[in-house]
Amino acid sequence: MTAYDDLMAYQRETEALSQVAGRLGWDQETMMPRGAAPQRAEEMAAMESVLHARRVDPRLGDWLAEIEDNALDDVGRANLRHIRRSFERASKVPAQLAARIARVTSEAQGIWAEARAADDFAAFAPTLTEVIALKREEGQALALGGDVYDAMLQDYEPGTTGAEIAGMFGALRPELSELRAAVRAAKAPPKLTGTFDEAAQMKLTRHLAKTFGYDMSMGRVDKAVHPFSSGSGLDVRITTRTNETDPFNCFYSTIHEVGHAAYEQGIDRAYLLTPLGRGVSMGVHESQSRIYENQIGRSRAFTAWLFGEMKEAFGDFGIPDSETFYRVVNRVSDGFIRTEADELQYNLHVLMRFDLERALVAHDLQVQDLEAAWNDRFEADFGFPVDKPSNGVLQDVHWSVGLLGYFPTYSLGNVYAGCLNEAMRAAVPGLDDQLAQGDTSTATAWLRDNVQSHGGLLEPRDVIARATGKPPSESPLLGYLRTKFTEIYEL
Amino acid sequence: MTAYDDLMAYQRETEALSQVAGRLGWDQETMMPRGAAPQRAEEMAAMESVLHARRVDPRLGDWLAEIEDNALDDVGRANLRHIRRSFERASKVPAQLAARIARVTSEAQGIWAEARAADDFAAFAPTLTEVIALKREEGQALALGGDVYDAMLQDYEPGTTGAEIAGMFGALRPELSELRAAVRAAKAPPKLTGTFDEAAQMKLTRHLAKTFGYDMSMGRVDKAVHPFSSGSGLDVRITTRTNETDPFNCFYSTIHEVGHAAYEQGIDRAYLLTPLGRGVSMGVHESQSRIYENQIGRSRAFTAWLFGEMKEAFGDFGIPDSETFYRVVNRVSDGFIRTEADELQYNLHVLMRFDLERALVAHDLQVQDLEAAWNDRFEADFGFPVDKPSNGVLQDVHWSVGLLGYFPTYSLGNVYAGCLNEAMRAAVPGLDDQLAQGDTSTATAWLRDNVQSHGGLLEPRDVIARATGKPPSESPLLGYLRTKFTEIYEL
Repeated sequence: MTAYDDLMAYQRETEALSQVAGRLGWDQETMMPRGAAPQRAEEMAAMESVLHARRVDPRLGDWLAEIEDNALDDVGRANLRHIRRSFERASKVPAQLAARIARVTSEAQGIWAEARAADDFAAFAPTLTEVIALKREEGQALALGGDVYDAMLQDYEPGTTGAEIAGMFGALRPELSELRAAVRAAKAPPKLTGTFDEAAQMKLTRHLAKTFGYDMSMGRVDKAVHPFSSGSGLDVRITTRTNETDPFNCFYSTIHEVGHAAYEQGIDRAYLLTPLGRGVSMGVHESQSRIYENQIGRSRAFTAWLFGEMKEAFGDFGIPDSETFYRVVNRVSDGFIRTEADELQYNLHVLMRFDLERALVAHDLQVQDLEAAWNDRFEADFGFPVDKPSNGVLQDVHWSVGLLGYFPTYSLGNVYAGCLNEAMRAAVPGLDDQLAQGDTSTATAWLRDNVQSHGGLLEPRDVIARATGKPPSESPLLGYLRTKFTEIYEL
Repeated sequence: MTAYDDLMAYQRETEALSQVAGRLGWDQETMMPRGAAPQRAEEMAAMESVLHARRVDPRLGDWLAEIEDNALDDVGRANLRHIRRSFERASKVPAQLAARIARVTSEAQGIWAEARAADDFAAFAPTLTEVIALKREEGQALALGGDVYDAMLQDYEPGTTGAEIAGMFGALRPELSELRAAVRAAKAPPKLTGTFDEAAQMKLTRHLAKTFGYDMSMGRVDKAVHPFSSGSGLDVRITTRTNETDPFNCFYSTIHEVGHAAYEQGIDRAYLLTPLGRGVSMGVHESQSRIYENQIGRSRAFTAWLFGEMKEAFGDFGIPDSETFYRVVNRVSDGFIRTEADELQYNLHVLMRFDLERALVAHDLQVQDLEAAWNDRFEADFGFPVDKPSNGVLQDVHWSVGLLGYFPTYSLGNVYAGCLNEAMRAAVPGLDDQLAQGDTSTATAWLRDNVQSHGGLLEPRDVIARATGKPPSESPLLGYLRTKFTEIYEL
């Protein structure tokens, strides 16, 4: 056994334990009886404590020092890159600070939930101030004198910087605002009306999951309050939800989560339970969920097929033809809430969060001024005022649990999805003919071969660059949105 | 923090991790997609490895040496007793032997399953020989010169001995054989016929679980191939199964598992996630499942209520009245399989396994002679020959996975249930009037207060002795069975 073999055997056990911790999270949201919550909190904490101890185990440092990187192949070097990054991160953050962050963010989530229910930002502000101070302290420890926000980003999107993202987002914002304004001034497609049996929604949603290549022999679909995908390797489960008057919520939540799950299921099996056996970054992950959901799932071709499936499942539901159905699916509506936003407006929600959190971390914005800053920016971008904090600054859980640097990965995912869509369309002529038959197999195979299969082998940016043959850029996404909505809204 | 506080904090985390491992087992039997099995095996092995390392952690030895037992109260001393027993057990067994047993028994289960499917004992015999040799070696390490089978028993029923059990079982066997022969010579009650909707079975089975006091806010009922109860404290889940022509299988499996689950749910909450927070032994556990299932669930009073519930759920199912229904429920039939045996014959199945495994461990019986010994004993006790190994010596998984000393706890549980039933009936006059209304609350409260609430505070034998005011004996069980079946079969 070489030091590399020892390290990988140790890491494999850590990966397995990490999957167990994730499965507990799935159970908590789907199966766990309510009264078990206090015990589950201790179980999760015990797993976290085991995982933390393994991440800072001094043997990792010994193995990493002993291994000659040059003697390894690409896979070996990529494994080392991930393990070294994790070990160095854990070693830089003082244990006491890590414990304090864990405790404060755990309490902060409850305080945020109460403040949101009471529509009272002031009740959350002191806690948020503490969370940001602690996360900034952590960021400083990680940055070693460099940019603190950039250091935070590495937890979610290794290799990117705030400046790079600001460049992309800066180019997106005026174009999206302009397109949004034009769309809102034009005549809107009709809305979906009526009710849709929830059991029939779940039946069709499972059919949709399979249609998008989700392997049910290594996964399952359940209902949960918030849709999510959970797990890696041979056990990747998704959740969705139903709403009697809004079947699109169910179907597109499912397709979105199937995008995440297909990524995990599509990774080269040789990487199972290694650092390469998981999606490489939040941004690349989101690129898969978004391209499944939007560029494929909300395309004219695919919605034509979906229209037929829905008629079969629900009978006549008041939409005369597939062209109208396509416009209904892609209808742009005013709204306060990011998670309910359509494809066109979604990024505007994210862009403002990125600017605000970056300013908070840089001390350019104080928490006491955050609510006003949020409301000003929202009205500037969306053209109407925020009515209450639960529809504004208090709507997302992220900041309360210390997720700073996470928001931009949502739009980075959309940008990546735009790049991948352009390349996929060029590589697969006649794709729409297949999608119109409900056949996504060529599209999903292209994504599996060019993106998903790599797992953690390449750096996030390089995954996209290699798949598309050029560096990531916001241009394809902008072009795609402009073409799509100009046509739908006859601009 | 004293050494005791340190020890208990450490132990609490171990208990939480042990609950997590148990939850994975539940998931595997109920929710896990089939294709996830290889990954799950690694996840379970990783959890086992973490738990094993914690059980032999040298800090445990330091803390145990430092603590003054006399300075502790009853609860503290009971905690120490459990932790010390576990640590000493782990320290006595060489790590290499423990690892070998884990590996061999893991493979042996598959070999046993194949041999059973092929009805070929010879295909399993070499593996069973190896398992027994390894478990005997472990038993010798644990016994320190004492009786090896007694040492094995301590894993399942601390404080008992093979000689003590042999005394009880020796008194049971002739009486049960005689009663069985008389019953088989008498006129049998009718059999249940017809089909029973499986969804309606599950609905009624959930109602039954609640009727027996199962707290659904800290548990849930799912279907699985084999019924089981899983977890302790605030999250105790059960499974059951359905068979269209045999609703009793569903209902009495549920009541049995609710007995196990109620024990875990009934333990003093102060013991949560401590060594006292789990059922104290397999025998006491089985006493709860059996008294729920048999002495309460198959009583004339309770079946009168169940008859009404079944008529409501399934309409007329061909049984004219509750007295006939009571006799149908308690019908004694020939059968090869222990897990399908009725209340009267069940113990005869267990008694023969106890004698055979004790002889195997003592070298008085060789594996090559086991099949013949099994078949001889079966025909002697049941009056007809075994037709094939899958109905005989290959029917149970236990020996393949190294469970030697486990079988007798099933009948010990029945003996304890007999003792508890006698004491409960004396303490609760008019109990049958309540059971006839489907009200088990006084019975289950008596069991909770006198048995379940103690958790691991007392030694197993002392739990029964304190609840009944006298040492455990087989007499009450025998008297109960004789009275019941004499009356049903008009002997």
